[in-house]
Amino acid sequence: MPDKKKTIIALSGGVGGAKLALGLAQTLDSPAFSASSQDLTVITNTADDFEHLSLPISPDLDTVMYTLAGINNTELGWGLAGETWQFMQSLTALGGENWFQLGDKDLATHIQRKALLKTYSLTTVTQKLCEQLDIKANILPMCDEPVQTQVCLAEDFAEKSAGEELGFQQYFVQYQCRPVIGSYSFTGINETRVSSEVQTAIDSAVALIVCPSNPFASIEPILSVVGMQQALENIACRVVVSPIVAGLAIKGPAAKMMQELGMPVTALAVAQLYKGFATHFVLDCQDQQYQQSIRELGMQVLVRNTIMKTDADKKTLATEILHFIAQSEII
Amino acid sequence: MPDKKKTIIALSGGVGGAKLALGLAQTLDSPAFSASSQDLTVITNTADDFEHLSLPISPDLDTVMYTLAGINNTELGWGLAGETWQFMQSLTALGGENWFQLGDKDLATHIQRKALLKTYSLTTVTQKLCEQLDIKANILPMCDEPVQTQVCLAEDFAEKSAGEELGFQQYFVQYQCRPVIGSYSFTGINETRVSSEVQTAIDSAVALIVCPSNPFASIEPILSVVGMQQALENIACRVVVSPIVAGLAIKGPAAKMMQELGMPVTALAVAQLYKGFATHFVLDCQDQQYQQSIRELGMQVLVRNTIMKTDADKKTLATEILHFIAQSEII
Repeated sequence: MPDKKKTIIALSGGVGGAKLALGLAQTLDSPAFSASSQDLTVITNTADDFEHLSLPISPDLDTVMYTLAGINNTELGWGLAGETWQFMQSLTALGGENWFQLGDKDLATHIQRKALLKTYSLTTVTQKLCEQLDIKANILPMCDEPVQTQVCLAEDFAEKSAGEELGFQQYFVQYQCRPVIGSYSFTGINETRVSSEVQTAIDSAVALIVCPSNPFASIEPILSVVGMQQALENIACRVVVSPIVAGLAIKGPAAKMMQELGMPVTALAVAQLYKGFATHFVLDCQDQQYQQSIRELGMQVLVRNTIMKTDADKKTLATEILHFIAQSEII
Repeated sequence: MPDKKKTIIALSGGVGGAKLALGLAQTLDSPAFSASSQDLTVITNTADDFEHLSLPISPDLDTVMYTLAGINNTELGWGLAGETWQFMQSLTALGGENWFQLGDKDLATHIQRKALLKTYSLTTVTQKLCEQLDIKANILPMCDEPVQTQVCLAEDFAEKSAGEELGFQQYFVQYQCRPVIGSYSFTGINETRVSSEVQTAIDSAVALIVCPSNPFASIEPILSVVGMQQALENIACRVVVSPIVAGLAIKGPAAKMMQELGMPVTALAVAQLYKGFATHFVLDCQDQQYQQSIRELGMQVLVRNTIMKTDADKKTLATEILHFIAQSEII
């Protein structure tokens, strides 16, 4: 154990979380901080993971890895830069299942993950892939056990009836979030445990940052890993960055899910979800009217532009969050 | 059962066999014959099949399929036309096992085969792939059970000692046929049986053509399927096309294997291997000195140019073989 705790833990889903994780990594590597991106641990949601064409797909882990390696596709917003689609075209010609896009380059990640999983845990596999991709930050799956988010339909959709369950990727990708959701659950969550690698990171953590990811589909599974929330509560400073800005989700179905689950689609409602857990809350300037109400939930509030369009936006937000933390803790 | 038998069965390994199979398919489709390529059944070696990166690879089936679909890569001599290698580059960057080249398009075949194998036999999977590729000829694996050719080393090679076994693809691709072979065997062969699809083809066959494929690594496994040789012997006309021309194999390790197994590397030695089985033998013009000796083995002999460089060569040889057969049988 180092003399002084200096690990920053980020919890992340896919695209939105990965943006802030990249900002944090780049900011920590700047001379203004005594820490570096090696002190950043990104605990990533794996409840979206699924097997497709016999390959183990980890959408959020891949997004975080590709983003931190600087090889993500910024035009598409997902996948790899310079991706090609020869495989998909051939698979389609052979009559294969083609609702989930697998790029030629991306396939290598899934096939190599599968090969390594014969010998190693998902945590170790992820570390090995990150090493090959020259990623300095520590990317960890939330756990090594398989968990799958299932959404339960509130209404009939296509060939599915109300009350039936749907895997998250099918809901998200195949049905493009169109079905109305009544509830959701994390199959396998009771069999999970905090991995020794996650525990080690938590033991040396000075702050926790919940990235602007879907509270239900990305962050809740991480916090639901058996023992995870308790372990994270040992970190004194716990910051949540709102994924809802001006009543909208920047990306993904967070806003739609809030609505269907009967919540107001506001940053305040997000803060209420994290009441008792978050000590700090980062609110977008467009939502400053909620500042006082969120303070009353027992959180310190930072009001900033949280929409990250450029790399500069990511670094600015990361820097501001790190300074916000530094007011109460020493990095 | 049709009134009149008209199926032509070809036995094939990879590249050399596929060339003649293509010639036969194109020739049968020409107006000169009352049959068509739908009457051609290519029973293909699957003893080179292996699992690589958890994918079921069937090198000979793929070569025959790609060749008959007209999508084979004629420049490389293997794989698909217009192939790209983004997957392999990314896999290499991730530290993956890269001794076996998997093109981006080719990957679709293996991944779709794996998906279909969850439900169907290899025979049915092959038929489904052929249908998607619009192949009229009937391509059948030699059997549905897994068989693997193992070569036994006569001398130490790399980290392997004399007496150790090596899977055929490792010998052929990874070690480029450099190890000296003492013997070989077909693991799993005793558990095989003639599939109902192969039996049906044999029942309606008017002639059998053993394509110019490796007698040990490609044809012997097919003939070693339990009950196969006996079943094929019910076809009165059984033609073998020599894979050895002027003491050389056109492609692959046939000549090297003959030498290491203590045989003269000649078309005559090939004919001797098929003594008692072949009724007809096709000899290259360069080897006409063996004509009389081969006749004395009890075979009718056709002397022709058997080297197929162009599509015209393939059709010419196929036409000549079909006429050769027609002298004794009616097509």
